[in-house]
Parts: sequence; structure tokens; C-alpha cells
Amino acid sequence: MKLYEYQNAPNPRRVKIFAAEKGVELELVHCDMAQRAHKTDEFLIKNPSGKIPVLELEDGRCISESVAICKYLELIHPEPNLFGSDEFEIAYIESRNRHIEFELWTQIGTSWVNGPIVGALGLVDQIADAKTASDKNVNTYYKRLDSEFSKSQFVAGDRYSVADITLLTAIDFASSMVDLKPDETLSNLARWHAEISSRPSSKN
Amino acid sequence: MKLYEYQNAPNPRRVKIFAAEKGVELELVHCDMAQRAHKTDEFLIKNPSGKIPVLELEDGRCISESVAICKYLELIHPEPNLFGSDEFEIAYIESRNRHIEFELWTQIGTSWVNGPIVGALGLVDQIADAKTASDKNVNTYYKRLDSEFSKSQFVAGDRYSVADITLLTAIDFASSMVDLKPDETLSNLARWHAEISSRPSSKN
Repeated sequence: MKLYEYQNAPNPRRVKIFAAEKGVELELVHCDMAQRAHKTDEFLIKNPSGKIPVLELEDGRCISESVAICKYLELIHPEPNLFGSDEFEIAYIESRNRHIEFELWTQIGTSWVNGPIVGALGLVDQIADAKTASDKNVNTYYKRLDSEFSKSQFVAGDRYSVADITLLTAIDFASSMVDLKPDETLSNLARWHAEISSRPSSKN
Repeated sequence: MKLYEYQNAPNPRRVKIFAAEKGVELELVHCDMAQRAHKTDEFLIKNPSGKIPVLELEDGRCISESVAICKYLELIHPEPNLFGSDEFEIAYIESRNRHIEFELWTQIGTSWVNGPIVGALGLVDQIADAKTASDKNVNTYYKRLDSEFSKSQFVAGDRYSVADITLLTAIDFASSMVDLKPDETLSNLARWHAEISSRPSSKN
């Protein structure tokens, strides 16, 4: 299976960490986003949204969206389980993953799109007020996480799951590329981050 | 099972349509958002994100996030299948659902939050430029959908799925509450909308 990715892009990293946890090897294919390779007609057949990652199967069929790709890997390689085992746990992990995606990742995305690196490319009309608001929302969410990690070891309770991968990649991207590193006084969040970062899969 | 909802709110509607397709009866509990009932300490125990819908099981455990609730209902009532049957189909429907959520629903949400109805409540600092951009993105996405529906009957190919429910509730909310009704010249999108709206479940 081929994974179309771009080095250091956070969403392909989600899939690479997930695959590493499963022990699944993927053939990495460089999609040159700097040259807009993800927006070509050829690539839009693979993913009409023009985004990476994309997983291409041996028969040429393609799957887009990080979580959809991870779910496919979970179905073909069930162990170790990362999406939950019984009905409630599957739904609970899904909900926790979505909290991170819709309340943190989307805000980091807004800060990124309206920040200096994207600004220098001159491809979008930036909105400074939107960045001010999303920066604030990110820091508010970090505080919520810190409180949650005072009571639970992982994002979805007492077990590692896909939701921890979603949060790790969000925070690492926010810290390195968007100048939104969590404040060091958030010690529970820092404990979680150190613990997850120490897993071999996180080196991806 | 109890479903905490608010009349005409689009996300609880997703779950109600899904449950109707499954023939699952849910006890509807009015969560008075106008009185900020979703932000009380009591409700935040059910969902730390302070949002509806929430599904409360007989034993008191709660599930938040529409898609997580729908997935739970799919697991306990597998037929009719709405999330896909084999590994590829499950991943494909997930990806299509996510395209609608992250590229259309989020934009409608931005237009809503920065629009006149929310503005009148005086609860958020609105950003006019953000609404201008999201309005444009919504209309661009409608055109993409129109093109896609020239080739496929449903959002995820030739079968009805959870992704059709996600899109129906998005468009109906955008049309009735955000002044973002799809242009009538988008005839393929209109064909899809009429077809999905005619299903008994869509009356929810």
C-alpha cells in the first residue's frame, strides 16, 4: 500500500504513527505540496478534496482522510486495537477523537492559515482577527486538556488510542509551526505529552 | 436511551434521522440551549464539550458527538447498514462523511457564528471577513457537490449512507438559518436533495 505524504505534514504523520503502532509497513510516496502536486487533475482523482494523506491500495483504489485510512488499517490489522473493542468504547473513543479534531485541530488550522508561514506564500486572504480568536481558543482548550489529564492517563481514559495520536500531532504541529506551544505550567498535559512522545511510533 | 436535543438544531437532527432509518426509538429530552442548559456543570459531566446531542444509556453512561452516537446505534442495530459493509466501503463512507464535515459543515458553522442570528445574541465577537470567506467556500463546495452528483446517486456512490444524512442536515440548516441555500441552477444537487428529502426519516 502506498501512502501519499509530505514530510513533516501533520496529517500524514497521524497515519504513519498509527501504522507504526500496528506494525504495518507503508510505501511512502512524496507528494510535493510546495509544487501544488496535491491539486493536479491526476491527484484529484485520488482525492477530490486535494489533500494528503491518501492511501492507495494494490488495486489502485484510494482512501482519503487520516481517520478513514486509520480505520481501514484497523479493519485489516485489528491488533493492537486502537479504535475500541466493545460498542461503548468504540463510540467513546470516536467522541474523544472528535473533540480534539473539531475543537482543537480546527482552531490550530485557523491560526496556521492566518499565520506568517502561510502568509508568506501569498495564496490566501488572511484574517488577523480570526487568528487572534483561534489562538485564544487553542490556549483555552489546552487548559481543558490539562484538567482532563489530571483525572485520566490518556485522551480516552485509561488506554492508548487513535485519539492520543490525533492530539500528539496537533500539539507538535502547533508547537513547531504555529507558535502555539502549551504553557509549561500545564503539568498534566506535559506529563501526557512526555509519555506519548516516548513511544517509538511517535518518532515518525 | 435518552437523546438530549434542541428542536431544529441540526446535529441532533442527524441522530434522529439516523435512528429513524434504523427503526430505533429514542426518548427525546429537551436541553434548553436558549437558557444555556448545555453549559451547566450537570450537563458538562455528560459532555465536557457542552454540546448537544448527547445519548444517555440506561446505565447512565453518555456518548457525545453525532457521528459517535450514530456509530453506537449502528453497532447495536446493524441493519439497515449505514456505515459500510466491507473494509473499503467503511473507510470510503468515513472519508466522504468527513469531506462534508470538514469542508462544508465547518464553513456553514463559521457563517452561522458570524451571522445575524448569533450576532443578535451578543455572545461572541463576530468577524465579518470570516463570514465573507466562509459564504464563498460554501458556494464553491455546492458546485463541487453538483459535479459529483452528476456521476453518483448518493454522497458515497450508489448507496444511501450516514454521509447523506450529514449533507442533508447541513444544507437544510444552511438554507433555513444561514441564508446559504444552494443556487437553483445546481440541478444535480437539487435532484439529490429532493430524493433524500422524500425519505420518511428526513421529516425529523
